Amino acid sequence: MKSFKKLFTSKPRTHIPESSFKFGGMASLKTLDVVPSPAEDAQKIKNAFIGLGTDEDAIIEILGHRDANQRQKIRETYRLLFNETLIDGLNKEVSGDFGKAVILWTYDPCERDARLANEVLKSKKKGIKHLEVIVEMSCASSPQHLVGVRKAYCDLFNSSLEEDILVSVPMPLRKVLVGLVTSYRYDKEMVDKDVAKLEANRLHESIKSKDLAHDDVVYILSTRNFYQLRATFEHYKEKHGNPIDEDIMKSGKGDLESLLKMVIVCIASPEKHFAQIVGTAIIGLGTDEDSLTRAIVSRAEIDMMKVKSEYLNIYKSSLDAAVTDDTSGDYRKFLVTLLGGKI
Amino acid sequence: MKSFKKLFTSKPRTHIPESSFKFGGMASLKTLDVVPSPAEDAQKIKNAFIGLGTDEDAIIEILGHRDANQRQKIRETYRLLFNETLIDGLNKEVSGDFGKAVILWTYDPCERDARLANEVLKSKKKGIKHLEVIVEMSCASSPQHLVGVRKAYCDLFNSSLEEDILVSVPMPLRKVLVGLVTSYRYDKEMVDKDVAKLEANRLHESIKSKDLAHDDVVYILSTRNFYQLRATFEHYKEKHGNPIDEDIMKSGKGDLESLLKMVIVCIASPEKHFAQIVGTAIIGLGTDEDSLTRAIVSRAEIDMMKVKSEYLNIYKSSLDAAVTDDTSGDYRKFLVTLLGGKI
Repeated sequence: MKSFKKLFTSKPRTHIPESSFKFGGMASLKTLDVVPSPAEDAQKIKNAFIGLGTDEDAIIEILGHRDANQRQKIRETYRLLFNETLIDGLNKEVSGDFGKAVILWTYDPCERDARLANEVLKSKKKGIKHLEVIVEMSCASSPQHLVGVRKAYCDLFNSSLEEDILVSVPMPLRKVLVGLVTSYRYDKEMVDKDVAKLEANRLHESIKSKDLAHDDVVYILSTRNFYQLRATFEHYKEKHGNPIDEDIMKSGKGDLESLLKMVIVCIASPEKHFAQIVGTAIIGLGTDEDSLTRAIVSRAEIDMMKVKSEYLNIYKSSLDAAVTDDTSGDYRKFLVTLLGGKI
Repeated sequence: MKSFKKLFTSKPRTHIPESSFKFGGMASLKTLDVVPSPAEDAQKIKNAFIGLGTDEDAIIEILGHRDANQRQKIRETYRLLFNETLIDGLNKEVSGDFGKAVILWTYDPCERDARLANEVLKSKKKGIKHLEVIVEMSCASSPQHLVGVRKAYCDLFNSSLEEDILVSVPMPLRKVLVGLVTSYRYDKEMVDKDVAKLEANRLHESIKSKDLAHDDVVYILSTRNFYQLRATFEHYKEKHGNPIDEDIMKSGKGDLESLLKMVIVCIASPEKHFAQIVGTAIIGLGTDEDSLTRAIVSRAEIDMMKVKSEYLNIYKSSLDAAVTDDTSGDYRKFLVTLLGGKI
């Protein structure tokens, strides 16, 4: 085995040309060219709450066309004007899948992820499906977002995110997840091809020897920048013939293998991960609304256009059509709005 | 050995009364009641640079009485007014220990620590003395400061802090340091006494079995909040008779033991750590100016009054007098100013 010293070399790295792997810039969310004042928006939402029944269309029309900054200003103004939080107001007026989706969307994105993470960590569920959101915030988000989630987590709950992972998640998943959530990756496009080769080989050794929770594996996946890791995965495929996630799944069928596969897909192609989340949520009997909502709410203002294109690629059908077919009522209207469609 | 599940319990914790363990609030730095405008300060500093020789007294008088926010505004304004950074201006005009100290003080505190960390990681020095600054930013600073340092590190250098630790620091020190620098601790006073007992015992087991780089040890020291850890160390002493850092030093004489002792002192009492840094820098033949400067520059606007009182406690003499006796010229004037004295 290579020594760490060798493995973690510090050669000058190469700036590679701007790739398609950027968070943001491919939103499906449609905001307005001329945005009403936050006070106007807050008042209209309040009006939608008042009277016989709630005016869901008005809520969708407003919140479904505002980005995170605009929603923040609406939240602040609503609180000042009406002496309650917008979230509390919504909680009283909306319900079901529509209610959950609107409320998740209305939260600050870091608070949203902190709450989703806390929910899964407290849920006592087994397996790794429910840990998806933690992998997504660590491996398919910017380092600033992840730190924001950790801060929100500490502010909301009486412990840090890491502490709650240590309590709720068994080894060896715990070791991988703690590594991932504590990362603060370099976020410019900087790749060292020699490091990619060395580390692809190191990952290959760990897969061969079924030692997937080795410190080296965790260090590689949780400290290297996303561009560097993509180069490592590409080198792996060139050198060893198969995509690394396939080799991992061939090496064992446990939760650790599934978790690492999820990590690798999120890093290599967040749009593929989210296309699969939507596909899995929709296809088959019934719909997994929580996953569908999370995917659309999380990515509508980041890269949903890429998720749609990847969905078409994988499922040979349109994500918009699939969501429209599989949902109904206000929930459908809201998701379609976030997807950039007309309701 | 207790299972992790048991170890990392999630019982409701107790809010303990405000203790003396807070970062900030005990600065020695004396700022002005009426502060000149940043433009005025920037102009005066520029004047101090111009002409025959540099007017060091003016530089000390201004920068030595401005806090981090005020210095930030001066940096921004200086750059706008004179089309060069204040740091570049200082670099041309000041030198020696005085120059180093003024420049370190003038940096944004997060950038300062990022640069100090990078310097030690690139220095190829052996042992743990030079790793002090990394322990200090992780164990004697707020979580926000540590994240700020990580961000500054990524912005300044072509890698993350963790990546450079992995390259430069051998196992098992690496494992402890990566855990510490990636922490984002809960920062309110919240203590669970049962957890303190369990984890004190877990640490005791690791000391007995000389297994100090065990995952559990790293998790405890790098995820628990400072108040919780102080309770753990106190329980350790009650239950096992000796302070935990003494037991660690009895268990071995390697770098890992010394590093863990440093970690524990920084967490249990940052003022004791910094008093010892100053003491060690001054006592004996010659002075270690770099350590002396780092300690005073780092803590002047945080807790230097507590460091002074701890110094008196340990060395039975005044820190101010020791610094005055052991330094000279503009360097002395500057340090004395940061210590809150008259020059």
